[in-house]
This record gives sequence, C-alpha cells and structure tokens, in this order.
Amino acid sequence: MPIVGVIGAGQLARMMIPPAVALGIELRVLAEAEDGSARLAATQVGDYRDVETVLGFARACDVITFDHEHVPQDVLRALVDAGVAVRPGPDALLHAQDKLTMRARLAELGIPQPDWTRAETAADLASFLDDHGGRAVVKTPRGGYDGKGVRVVADAAEAADWLEAGPVLVEELVPFQRELAQLIARRPSGEARTWPLVETVQRGGVCAEVIAPAPRVTDAVERAAAEIATSIAHGLSVTGVLAVELFEANDGRVLVNELAMRPHNSGHVTIDGHTTSQFEQHLRAVLDWPLGDTAALAEWGVMINVFGALPDDRIALALGHQPSAKVHAYGKGPRAGRKAGHVTVIGSDLDDVAYRARAAAASFD
Amino acid sequence: MPIVGVIGAGQLARMMIPPAVALGIELRVLAEAEDGSARLAATQVGDYRDVETVLGFARACDVITFDHEHVPQDVLRALVDAGVAVRPGPDALLHAQDKLTMRARLAELGIPQPDWTRAETAADLASFLDDHGGRAVVKTPRGGYDGKGVRVVADAAEAADWLEAGPVLVEELVPFQRELAQLIARRPSGEARTWPLVETVQRGGVCAEVIAPAPRVTDAVERAAAEIATSIAHGLSVTGVLAVELFEANDGRVLVNELAMRPHNSGHVTIDGHTTSQFEQHLRAVLDWPLGDTAALAEWGVMINVFGALPDDRIALALGHQPSAKVHAYGKGPRAGRKAGHVTVIGSDLDDVAYRARAAAASFD
Repeated sequence: MPIVGVIGAGQLARMMIPPAVALGIELRVLAEAEDGSARLAATQVGDYRDVETVLGFARACDVITFDHEHVPQDVLRALVDAGVAVRPGPDALLHAQDKLTMRARLAELGIPQPDWTRAETAADLASFLDDHGGRAVVKTPRGGYDGKGVRVVADAAEAADWLEAGPVLVEELVPFQRELAQLIARRPSGEARTWPLVETVQRGGVCAEVIAPAPRVTDAVERAAAEIATSIAHGLSVTGVLAVELFEANDGRVLVNELAMRPHNSGHVTIDGHTTSQFEQHLRAVLDWPLGDTAALAEWGVMINVFGALPDDRIALALGHQPSAKVHAYGKGPRAGRKAGHVTVIGSDLDDVAYRARAAAASFD
Repeated sequence: MPIVGVIGAGQLARMMIPPAVALGIELRVLAEAEDGSARLAATQVGDYRDVETVLGFARACDVITFDHEHVPQDVLRALVDAGVAVRPGPDALLHAQDKLTMRARLAELGIPQPDWTRAETAADLASFLDDHGGRAVVKTPRGGYDGKGVRVVADAAEAADWLEAGPVLVEELVPFQRELAQLIARRPSGEARTWPLVETVQRGGVCAEVIAPAPRVTDAVERAAAEIATSIAHGLSVTGVLAVELFEANDGRVLVNELAMRPHNSGHVTIDGHTTSQFEQHLRAVLDWPLGDTAALAEWGVMINVFGALPDDRIALALGHQPSAKVHAYGKGPRAGRKAGHVTVIGSDLDDVAYRARAAAASFD
C-alpha cells in the first residue's frame, strides 16, 4: 500500500481521503492543529516550517504533496536533498508561491498574460499606471489568496505600505467578460490530462460558484485554455494538479490570472461531476500512476461554495430540499466568511442544475 | 457533527468513510482487530459479542449501525435497553440473522418466495424432497453467507450433520433465468427509496458481477421487485439499506432468495454509478436524514468483484489499461478467494461498459 504524505490538514487534504480509501492508498497528514479538516487522516501535528518536523514526517512516506503552498523553499529543498519525492517539487512550486517569479517564467514560456511589471518604488508603479490608463492591480508577490494581497490602485501612494516591505507585482487591469479555470494534472513521467474548461464566478475576490463546462465557450477559447495549461504543466514540470485561473478578456484574449499547484476550488465540481475527480487524479499523479478519464458525467455541473458553517440541521434541510444535491462539509467550526463546504448538482439542463444547486446552498444562509 | 458508530471494520464500514467525510459525519468503528479494512475510522478494537464492550462503544455515538449481521441479539437488546439508537433494530435484524424467521415473516407479509419448510428431522426433509421432485436447497438458519451454509440435496442423509445441530431451512430449488437484486433504503420516519433493479451474476455461490440496471427487464418484473423490497422494508421496519436478493424464475415469478440489512455487494455499483451511493444513503437513513436521489448517472454500470489481492502495481496496471475504470481496494492482505476489491465502469453502451470493466478487473488475475 503506497503512502502519500500531505502537508497541511485543510479541506483539500480532507477531500483526498475518499479517493485514497477507494484506491487503497495510505494517506498521512501533517496537521498544524488537532482540529484540522483532514484530522481523520492526521498522523502528526507539527509545524510545516520546521525542517526536522517535516523531514521526520516525510521519511515514512513514499511521496510528499500539499494541502497548501506555504511550505518554505528551504524546507522543500531539505526534503529533496534527503531523497524524499516531493510533488510538485520546489522548482515548480516556487511559481505558485511567488507571483513575480510566475509572471517572469510565463513570459519566457510565451504564455498569454496581462501586461505586468515588477515595481520596487512608487515611481515604478506610477510609470506603469501612466502607461495603462491610470489604473492597475497591485499584488504582494507572496501570501495572497482569496482576494487578500490584491488591490486595484489609481495612485502609487495606495500601495506605499506594500512597497515599503519589498517589490510588488503590478498588472494591467484586464477588462474581462468572465473568469475561467483550466484544471490539468501531470505525472512525473509526463502524462497530462485536462478537465473540461469551467467558468468561475467570484464575489468579493472569492470563488462563489463554478459552472462546468463554461457555457457558450468558443472552440478557440477552449483550445487556448487547454494549450496554456498544458504548456505551463510541462514547462514548469508540474506534478499533481495545476489550476490555471484565466480571464476571458473583452477583446477575446485568454490570459493567465493565477496559478495553483494543488487541487483547487474551481475543481471541486469534479468530485461529483466527472469520471475522475481532481483529488483522485492528484493522488494518481503524485504516485506517478496512470491518470484517469476526465469526462463529465452529465452535460452540466454547478458547484456553489458555502461560507461560515454547515450545521447538521441545515445539512439535513439541504438534503431534504434537493435530493439530487451533493453536500460537502469541511468539518470546520463556524467562522463568518470562511469556506465551510460546498454543494454540487449535475444534470442535463443548466438552468435546472443551477437552480437546484443554489436552492440547496441557500439552506445554509 | 453527528456520530455514527459502526460495529465491524470490514469493507462495508470502509466504504462508509467517503460519504461520512463528505457529509461531515463522524464515523467511529468498533473493529475486531487492528488491521480491519475500515481501520482508518477504527476508534476501538473489541469483541462485538461482549455486551460491556459494545455498550461502552455505543454510548458515545448518536446511532449504532453495522458492517455485518453477526452481533448477537442479547447484545443488540442491551443497547436498546440502554437507550442507544440501533439501526436497523434487533427486531428487524433478526430476519437477516435467522433464515427460518425470515421465511416465516415473509410468508405472513404475503411476499412471493420459494416453497419452504422448517425441517427438524430427516423425515421432514425427505417429505419435502418427495413433494418437490426429489431435490431441494438446505440452509443452516444462521451464519451462512457467500454460498456457505447452503447445500443442494437429493437425499435427507446429505443434511444429516446439520440436522443433528438443529432445525434447518429447506427450500424449493427454483428453476430461474437469472438472479436480481433490489436495493432500498428506509429511514425511521418512514421515507424509503429504491435504486434501479440490478442483475447479479454468481460464480460458486459468490457474487462475481453486477449489471445495473438489469438488462431486458420487463415492467412487471421491475414493479414486482420494487414492491417486494418496499413491503419488506416497511413490514419489517428496516432502517438503513436493505438488499433483497431475488430469483427471476423460469415461469416469470419474482421470488425472494435472501435478505441483507446493510449495504450489500449488489449495491457497490451505486458508488460510481448513481447519484446517491448505498453507503451515503445508509448513513443518511440511520441518522433519519432525508434520503438522496437514486437515479443512475449513465445508462449502464457494471461492477466486477476482485478476489485474492489488489497489489499496488496491478492497481496501476488496471488504471492504465482502462482510464475510465473506478478501482476500489479494500485494504486487505492477500488471501485466495476473499473479496479484495471491485471495479466499476459506467457508460452508454452495455457491451463496451462490460468489456472495460472486465478488462480492468482482469489486471488482477
């Protein structure tokens, strides 16, 4: 029985448990605290920033992978030096950890992306603003997620606090029709498989809803998204799941917004909606096992995030209202605004599927 | 978070883990040994025949259910007396534990079944043989499964050893076209839902293959099977999943062969093939939560049992050969003839689905 070690015990590690059980994989989780989402599979509680802790955990595993992208590079490199299989490896993962590194590398690979620059000073930022109609997106290179570490600015002074701490990434504010996400998995021996392109709907910088496949998508956009994801997966030697968040710009361009090198919110719909879920595929990929079919099980799937809490009585309510809804609870205590679970419905009619998914999710309002 | 306690740590308890994770249910398993299939969720190792052990385990759970039907009635009744919610309850479960009790009760309910008698002596058996063309099926009332405790006899002497130990069940040898299974779940408040009727293919008294739905089934047979299962579920106040194994007799009658009051091998196809799996439905039912939609996700599903072992390299082989196959390993050590896992494929063409499922399963030969 192969042993996959996961650093981090959040909902992504939790959702790896079902496919691990199915495939006879032993999942071991290094948790930050006793009460993590993936506590069922937690074999150790410890600090993922501590080399000795992570090394001790990793030595008993066949391969190490991640629930999040925050493991420091020195820890990752110590694992590799000790002969541990780390997937994705530190060289790949750096591009999901540092947005400036990501932009520079995607430029080298010729991947379409928004205009961008590295700004070290207010003057750098002011110059970019001048060249881009007076508005731009400023991002801290590290640590941002779910809208955190991102600001739309019209004046360099609005990013002064960040610039004091170091260089920032500045990006063109892309006028876009909508956001898309292209999920792909790649295994070390090179095999890669994409899932159908999805549309993601963000509210307040956080993913609220995913529609699979993206409705009314042209063949050209579909092809562009798959080519971008495939180029990045191979170009960066990604192993495991890679999520490429994309803008479908008003002018028709498909541009890379963000990368994640792990199962991703935009892929939760694959659990109930596709032959192979992103979590199963991730485990197969990091073990260098053959990848699974990514075909959809129905014409449409809609995934809605639930924030705050999923109390038991509300779960029963949702299941009663919508017998076809698949409810996923992350086993977290209640906290306003935090992703606590999601609901997926699949079927042949998009309006009906979306209605049922939203009605089930509304049970938690 | 509701706590469901499962007595027994076999593959049925194991396959309850994924839906428990999804629905935010805490699963606690009372295992017989450290290395049970469901060891990931095992919170205690102990003897399920010991009242104090089971009571101690059960007191911390919201509801108790089962991986197998072997928990003695005195233990079950002690749980009920202590105020524990036991689902299915001892009165219902008795009919899955004792085949003579089952036959007598189904007769009271007017459920179609093979001719049968309770034989206490060789003379009783000989008389039944005389009335039924000289051949009959003899079953020990308790403890039989997968062909064990079942003999076809032409002479009362062939069951002499069993008759010495006590009364036996004697049944008409039904000339049948095929075997079917009707799965249903019922919750305490009375809601019940059937899954589509399936065909089961047995080899050596053991389920080898399940085809969902049963091909070329008439409306009358489909209706009869659903009515039988519904009548039994309500008539016996079953809570949780009930599997009704049926004969489709040569003369067109649909007759009850066996009952199981738990998720059942004939329902494994529901994990990958239906909106709500039997394992999720069982958890929902025993918690008295609303039941889920049981619609199939594709026109056809084929499930093949794998016996002996599922070594890692063979799992990878199967996944490589058939990217659409869903492989389920039960985490057991190798042992010839023992159910070690199963493979399911779903799709729109039965021949193609069956070919792919058998090809994937053949990777383990």
